[in-house]
Amino acid sequence: MSKTLIRGGTVVTATELYKGDVLVEDEKVSAIGSALTIQADRTIDASGKYVLPGGIDVHTHLDMPFGGTTSADDFETGTIAAAHGGTTSIVDFAIQYKGQTLRQGWENWMTKAQGKAAIDYGFHLIVTDLPEKLEPEMDAMVAEGVTSFKLFMAYRGVLMLDDGSIFRALSRTAENGGTICMHAENGDVIDVLVRRALVERKTAPKYHALTRPPRAEAEATYRAICLAEIAGVPIYIVHLSAAEALEKVTEARDRGLPAYAETCPQYLFLSYANYEEPGFEGAKYVMSPPLREKGNEEKLWRGLAGNDLQAVSTDHCPFCMKEQKELGQDDFSKIPNGAPGIETRMHLLYDGGVVRGRISLNRFVELTSTSPAKIFGLFPKKGTIAPGSDADIVIFDPGKKHTLSVKTLHHRVDYTPYEGREVTGRVETVFSRGKVIVENGNFTGRAGAGQFLRRKPRTS
Amino acid sequence: MSKTLIRGGTVVTATELYKGDVLVEDEKVSAIGSALTIQADRTIDASGKYVLPGGIDVHTHLDMPFGGTTSADDFETGTIAAAHGGTTSIVDFAIQYKGQTLRQGWENWMTKAQGKAAIDYGFHLIVTDLPEKLEPEMDAMVAEGVTSFKLFMAYRGVLMLDDGSIFRALSRTAENGGTICMHAENGDVIDVLVRRALVERKTAPKYHALTRPPRAEAEATYRAICLAEIAGVPIYIVHLSAAEALEKVTEARDRGLPAYAETCPQYLFLSYANYEEPGFEGAKYVMSPPLREKGNEEKLWRGLAGNDLQAVSTDHCPFCMKEQKELGQDDFSKIPNGAPGIETRMHLLYDGGVVRGRISLNRFVELTSTSPAKIFGLFPKKGTIAPGSDADIVIFDPGKKHTLSVKTLHHRVDYTPYEGREVTGRVETVFSRGKVIVENGNFTGRAGAGQFLRRKPRTS
Amino acid sequence: MSKTLIRGGTVVTATELYKGDVLVEDEKVSAIGSALTIQADRTIDASGKYVLPGGIDVHTHLDMPFGGTTSADDFETGTIAAAHGGTTSIVDFAIQYKGQTLRQGWENWMTKAQGKAAIDYGFHLIVTDLPEKLEPEMDAMVAEGVTSFKLFMAYRGVLMLDDGSIFRALSRTAENGGTICMHAENGDVIDVLVRRALVERKTAPKYHALTRPPRAEAEATYRAICLAEIAGVPIYIVHLSAAEALEKVTEARDRGLPAYAETCPQYLFLSYANYEEPGFEGAKYVMSPPLREKGNEEKLWRGLAGNDLQAVSTDHCPFCMKEQKELGQDDFSKIPNGAPGIETRMHLLYDGGVVRGRISLNRFVELTSTSPAKIFGLFPKKGTIAPGSDADIVIFDPGKKHTLSVKTLHHRVDYTPYEGREVTGRVETVFSRGKVIVENGNFTGRAGAGQFLRRKPRTS
Amino acid sequence: MSKTLIRGGTVVTATELYKGDVLVEDEKVSAIGSALTIQADRTIDASGKYVLPGGIDVHTHLDMPFGGTTSADDFETGTIAAAHGGTTSIVDFAIQYKGQTLRQGWENWMTKAQGKAAIDYGFHLIVTDLPEKLEPEMDAMVAEGVTSFKLFMAYRGVLMLDDGSIFRALSRTAENGGTICMHAENGDVIDVLVRRALVERKTAPKYHALTRPPRAEAEATYRAICLAEIAGVPIYIVHLSAAEALEKVTEARDRGLPAYAETCPQYLFLSYANYEEPGFEGAKYVMSPPLREKGNEEKLWRGLAGNDLQAVSTDHCPFCMKEQKELGQDDFSKIPNGAPGIETRMHLLYDGGVVRGRISLNRFVELTSTSPAKIFGLFPKKGTIAPGSDADIVIFDPGKKHTLSVKTLHHRVDYTPYEGREVTGRVETVFSRGKVIVENGNFTGRAGAGQFLRRKPRTS
Repeated sequence: MSKTLIRGGTVVTATELYKGDVLVEDEKVSAIGSALTIQADRTIDASGKYVLPGGIDVHTHLDMPFGGTTSADDFETGTIAAAHGGTTSIVDFAIQYKGQTLRQGWENWMTKAQGKAAIDYGFHLIVTDLPEKLEPEMDAMVAEGVTSFKLFMAYRGVLMLDDGSIFRALSRTAENGGTICMHAENGDVIDVLVRRALVERKTAPKYHALTRPPRAEAEATYRAICLAEIAGVPIYIVHLSAAEALEKVTEARDRGLPAYAETCPQYLFLSYANYEEPGFEGAKYVMSPPLREKGNEEKLWRGLAGNDLQAVSTDHCPFCMKEQKELGQDDFSKIPNGAPGIETRMHLLYDGGVVRGRISLNRFVELTSTSPAKIFGLFPKKGTIAPGSDADIVIFDPGKKHTLSVKTLHHRVDYTPYEGREVTGRVETVFSRGKVIVENGNFTGRAGAGQFLRRKPRTS
Repeated sequence: MSKTLIRGGTVVTATELYKGDVLVEDEKVSAIGSALTIQADRTIDASGKYVLPGGIDVHTHLDMPFGGTTSADDFETGTIAAAHGGTTSIVDFAIQYKGQTLRQGWENWMTKAQGKAAIDYGFHLIVTDLPEKLEPEMDAMVAEGVTSFKLFMAYRGVLMLDDGSIFRALSRTAENGGTICMHAENGDVIDVLVRRALVERKTAPKYHALTRPPRAEAEATYRAICLAEIAGVPIYIVHLSAAEALEKVTEARDRGLPAYAETCPQYLFLSYANYEEPGFEGAKYVMSPPLREKGNEEKLWRGLAGNDLQAVSTDHCPFCMKEQKELGQDDFSKIPNGAPGIETRMHLLYDGGVVRGRISLNRFVELTSTSPAKIFGLFPKKGTIAPGSDADIVIFDPGKKHTLSVKTLHHRVDYTPYEGREVTGRVETVFSRGKVIVENGNFTGRAGAGQFLRRKPRTS
Repeated sequence: MSKTLIRGGTVVTATELYKGDVLVEDEKVSAIGSALTIQADRTIDASGKYVLPGGIDVHTHLDMPFGGTTSADDFETGTIAAAHGGTTSIVDFAIQYKGQTLRQGWENWMTKAQGKAAIDYGFHLIVTDLPEKLEPEMDAMVAEGVTSFKLFMAYRGVLMLDDGSIFRALSRTAENGGTICMHAENGDVIDVLVRRALVERKTAPKYHALTRPPRAEAEATYRAICLAEIAGVPIYIVHLSAAEALEKVTEARDRGLPAYAETCPQYLFLSYANYEEPGFEGAKYVMSPPLREKGNEEKLWRGLAGNDLQAVSTDHCPFCMKEQKELGQDDFSKIPNGAPGIETRMHLLYDGGVVRGRISLNRFVELTSTSPAKIFGLFPKKGTIAPGSDADIVIFDPGKKHTLSVKTLHHRVDYTPYEGREVTGRVETVFSRGKVIVENGNFTGRAGAGQFLRRKPRTS
Repeated sequence: MSKTLIRGGTVVTATELYKGDVLVEDEKVSAIGSALTIQADRTIDASGKYVLPGGIDVHTHLDMPFGGTTSADDFETGTIAAAHGGTTSIVDFAIQYKGQTLRQGWENWMTKAQGKAAIDYGFHLIVTDLPEKLEPEMDAMVAEGVTSFKLFMAYRGVLMLDDGSIFRALSRTAENGGTICMHAENGDVIDVLVRRALVERKTAPKYHALTRPPRAEAEATYRAICLAEIAGVPIYIVHLSAAEALEKVTEARDRGLPAYAETCPQYLFLSYANYEEPGFEGAKYVMSPPLREKGNEEKLWRGLAGNDLQAVSTDHCPFCMKEQKELGQDDFSKIPNGAPGIETRMHLLYDGGVVRGRISLNRFVELTSTSPAKIFGLFPKKGTIAPGSDADIVIFDPGKKHTLSVKTLHHRVDYTPYEGREVTGRVETVFSRGKVIVENGNFTGRAGAGQFLRRKPRTS
């Protein structure tokens, strides 16, 4: 049995903050103490550092086909980038294409991850087609540890489900303990606006945003919550971007409903103004929902500080400007939707949140790790530092400043939306199930070492 | 020129209440005064009575095919019943069936009314099919005085439009001054619930209500308001029944949006409990939305007293228990939806509203006449008593008690939901464009005397 | 009997808008018609003009001692100025000083008005001292037609009542049909802030605003509403200025409470920025509550357009810059609080409201005349143009542009906050109880012609 | 150094839940592990049990004079009762009487506790008199570890402060890191209602509730929050009882304000109906605020489940029915206000909350221990089980049923409001700073062993 002792750091969990030692035996945390007197194989001095639970990013799109191209990171480059950024688990999206069984969708993505993922990974399953006869397969997926399903209220003809199918899916998870993740935008309205914009020869990237109004997100958010309420089941809204949509979540939570939502760093640090960068630069930020007007981000921060938003994920869905984003040079609707973020999440949130005093250090851990672990059936295996938990640990230097740049990031895409941004706080050492996989800025892990996360269903 | 003088009554409008004389010349009110010294052809003593603007019912379904049968009142029996109840104008619903032009739908209903209507009538046009190429016809309809369109968010495959079509329709009315009336229930959710109930052999009338949850109405109400907000145009929610839906209207109005809604007497005076009447009696109340739990009505009254609800209409859509409602004896989903109300509206609202102190007398006039006239382009021709307005006038005895009963009502249906209810206040004399059409409980008008109301578009 | 015929104008009331003739006999409107065929003593051609109910300003302070000086207009100059501005009735504030009976307060102000007022006037009574033994006198005042009482939640030691007295006063009006008008600011908090500012040598006029935070108004507004709710009686909030306070009124109205509020033109047209005008100019705008940050006014306009605000009054309380405002040259807390507005209200509201499309013409009449008349027991004697009503009428030229300036205004104060503002729409002819008192810009009435308005108590 | 090993239990904190061993060295937790291999002086088998942080009750009134009598428990009987109920720290209320310095108030209570308290104790200081010259003493108190102050908005002439003093106190804590705890009821309104009830000879206990309307609590709650907002400082509302008041807290939290509130078991488990128990029994429940109508409790539970309420304290303020409550036999206003609860809190909340599925086990720990510890400057010394924390630990048997009864409880009062209530879950062993003070239902600690808790000021 291998023993590693992380000594003298400040251990931070969603609740605690104490100076202490953490003992790792093989893949697990076996003890924490004020001053453990243990003979370890390796001792790491963490004094002056934070010892944090590894980050969990529950919204990534690796190796995903989209609009005739494929997201630029596969499970190898994507998870190595994640590890550099302090993230030790992801939940990616497998897609059931129309006509496929759910299992086919899942297995397809299992194959993509197999032998490549450097950190542990689970899957949500995107359901694009739900005839009644497939409903029982939802139960089977939950039994396999694929306990969450993503549905779309947008992209008619491609990903969108009608309200009846959505409601049946929700009702099914009410029984089987699964969780529905919702892309909440009114796609039909957006389709009309896009068509109208193109007819009027409004083709620049900014029209991507101007044809996806915040009220269309608020509408779909409320609709999703209502359908879940009628079905008697929790709901999880993905990548919430607009203050108007947040209000609907707040209102639901005030009524006592189990409505959850995540936001992403792009909605906290960027804004509509980015679409007006010169030339075709705005394409970097073409994602759905789009970046919103300045002012929304303060409300999202408030939602994070309170408990109206429960997680910060990335929606990492990278496309290179060259050859990929360029597909939409003459028509914003052809720009592949998405942007990279898997590696920058923890650094951005620590700097913008903790350093700037918007959220506490405990809340930072909760939002990036504990809370998503609890919502998606990974806790307490993941999401905390406690006896018996997986030793997914980040040693974090709270004072170290560095600058985010595509030159130093490890993702396989030719830009970062945060180019040149200086942040305080740096991921120093990263453990994945007891093994050091990042040290001194070097990846010391192994592609393929990541394991599939068979997640637990909801119990309430 | 014929001159009639209504002398000594208490004239009530949405704002005023004064003792005075009203002079009618031919079809119009030509003067009002404290004591007019005019030589009239006829003088009617209204002392001790209220002199009110004739009622306007903007939600009726006369001679309407539904589920293999036809609503029991045609334009003759229906409008005569209306007149007895103090209503002097209706706006009925013409239907464009799938595949038809809008004009075809309208003309079809013009034919039904022609030569039969005893009071003036306009049409909303139900649009069930809106390919882009039909959009310009909406403008044409507005030009013809059919300035409002009803869309359905329920009844997929029959009446329901998808959100894209709804949004295009709203956008079109933003330009052409039309108004969208919305049946706001999430039909897809309801369809799932109905199917589920029938599978479980829940066939009694009450399941009609139990498969149409109030939250499904609130959802659609908010969605309709959001789509209108994005389109930049007012919206009018028809037959609002649930407190949850009202909250969405209130919220919108608090934000300053031009969101309007009507409710109907059935939602103010009846409740879910009626579905539990013995045997098949509950079928009398099968309508959509359904009657709600006790408690909702108090919130609707509050909405009427404030200005969150702007009108009380009837949704008069009568089907006889015999042969019609009976179609659903073994399956609630086959019961024709609708109930009679065209004749009882004014009496119920006066008694339950004014006599019981929930609304003022001015507000009673506003809700039953002035406000619908303003919203639907009939004011000041209709909806008030003022120089130049049509002489549609009701002389109302505020103290007279009487009992509502199918035995004495004039509609052509074999029951009233209000059987045996005693009310205070009685319509005594009714003028339609200067002619007395009801007097001493007798109809003195003429089928066919009613004229088509070419309504004005919105100006703001 | 004298007969005047106002011919061919467009008569506008809170509800109506029609072309018609108005017949005035002696002091009353006796008839209105499409084309009256009457032999009149005088006929005035109003074609192309609006014929409006005379304005009612329910918040003025004429001849009022304050901080060692007296408001610059007495009942003669003030009411003549009002008339020029289209206002034909005021409700001024009589003050019961500590130790006085209520009647003494009222009679004191009756004397001030007597023989001076050029238009009709009523009184609210400011109660500054309410031992239990004076409570019955509130009933006596209501019986005298002084049916409303103003209480202060600010100015401890001078005007402020404690919550117990306020609650007793509210409870008394629940019985006697009176109405409580509330100055809603938390005076204790303000007093602390003022003291703190002066200690820090912050003496400029702007500190008047900075020491009266909007939240202190919202707090007191909610408190007043709660106390009224417990007492079971309506409440009227005077000079509401802050969006935060409006929210509390909106919330109360959404709950169905009879909460009313007025705002004033200064809060619609001016803002905090005015306090930063050079030198001592900011003193012009020193009033309580103070002008608020830009942005509040749009919410107030929305409150007026909906029905969350029911009246626009002026809080006319004029002090000359010279010798009066100057008292606070070195200490903002010594600047007499108040500004002139009695003459500019109707012009400003028509221009900013109707011309700019924020409120309808009917709503303009409602806010400036009908609604205050109804709330304060003057309707239908005042507040409308209907048979039997007092002939207080304004003939208004909707297209005429003119510029507001102290040079042309008639109030007795050396500035106007609206100097140089061009407005569209002009008061042309003004009737007070059937007599023309303003014509072609000249006052043709008589000081002393105004009568005391014995107002009616609430009936609900 | 003494070592105790708690072996094999399920450790529960606000976030965690894992099987593990807890090592206690002297007064502290020194290590936690999956299977610690330590030679301990004593080993306690906790398998099948929960190992919880000791409870913290931040609202008790021991040995407190009130209305001519004194609360029945002193620091000895009260803290021993607390220990039996699983509570290992209290924060009691010291009172500064009018005319005293703050320090005098504090020292007075230090003397009461000295040599008597069996568990650790801190003090909030009730400030009843705050001339400006005493403000600096607030800083001194914070420096002494008395970091919170309680103010009253009720009981004029005895405890109540005016809004100016409250605002000055809030402003001072904005600087010195103290926290204001507020008794939020509008005392002036209540005083009027009480006087009115007594005049009407309404003297029974239930009139205590009927003269303290929920809206008077909502009003004061909003006022307290507003004053804190203006002062820029957090606020903590004590013993929140009414849904209307909770709404104000929710609203504030939705706006992002640091508004906190506690409720107490009596508001969760009892209701107004208790006042109608026969004879003088209702006196048992006379406390302020009073018990509310059935229905409120479900909203409070919802507030606890979400995060609108942050703590459950007891307001333990026991008076015997005999001789004490009896003082108000003929006049409800003379009944000493308060009821016992210090010993029943944890059992009630576990049973009503966790067993009934209203809150999670983690949330139970958070509400009874972690969250009050964080808010009141005791964390991480108290409020969790983590390396370095005080070993205040409860071993809890989750399945054991028992019945609450005055016969078996240890408080010194002749009744419990929960007589005969069966609950599931039982406190078995209690550690206070490493020493077992309750074992097998016996108190094994020592009066006087409790230490004064010098609390830390807020840092944000």
